[in-house]
Amino acid sequence: MSKYENRGFLLKQRAFLKLYMYQIIMEQKRYGQEYLHKLRKEFEPFGYSPTHSEMYKVLHELTREKLVTREKRIKGEPGVDFQEVIFYELTDKGKEEYDLFKKQMKVELERNKALLEKALRDHYAPLK
Amino acid sequence: MSKYENRGFLLKQRAFLKLYMYQIIMEQKRYGQEYLHKLRKEFEPFGYSPTHSEMYKVLHELTREKLVTREKRIKGEPGVDFQEVIFYELTDKGKEEYDLFKKQMKVELERNKALLEKALRDHYAPLK
Repeated sequence: MSKYENRGFLLKQRAFLKLYMYQIIMEQKRYGQEYLHKLRKEFEPFGYSPTHSEMYKVLHELTREKLVTREKRIKGEPGVDFQEVIFYELTDKGKEEYDLFKKQMKVELERNKALLEKALRDHYAPLK
Repeated sequence: MSKYENRGFLLKQRAFLKLYMYQIIMEQKRYGQEYLHKLRKEFEPFGYSPTHSEMYKVLHELTREKLVTREKRIKGEPGVDFQEVIFYELTDKGKEEYDLFKKQMKVELERNKALLEKALRDHYAPLK
């Protein structure tokens, strides 16, 4: 996870998004153009709105490292609601990397959570 | 808190450190050179080691904005263990800003924690 490391402070957005991208691609229910909408909707109650650029950086990285393949497909009826969409699929290497990354990220998310909980205790604990 | 905003993802290190710096300065138990040691020791179990540079950026910001005053003092006996140390103290404006910042940071830390908890649920919840 060195690429995502932040000298031990909180994890970087890219690592966080990558975990979600792996999951979305694995599910095979959506095409690329729908990913951002799904993520924004999910994170809205948490005041977080991932950008198009951040999401595509992750998708490009996964593609470049041959962890996912891209495939253009035609959606709808020609001449009616014809649309070219992009489907992503995990490669075998991608599935292995996802497993590994998911394990690393569990540790990292829990470490991050503990750091925030410490700050909440240190500054907002009721006076004894 | 716009300066510290991270487009809704996790909070920035500088805001986190600033909360601790305010607290340390408010306590008046330590001088500047001891701050980093205290913070590193506290965060060690969480795999986080703030850098000298990050900490001094916060101290300089607080000084520049007249939220703290700096005062050089002499510690120890001349010719024996003589040492020039720097004491920081919150100004009245600094105390007001600390109160406000502390309130904002509570909301922010809780939002961050909720975002991490969501990710833990979304990826590691036991299968139903």
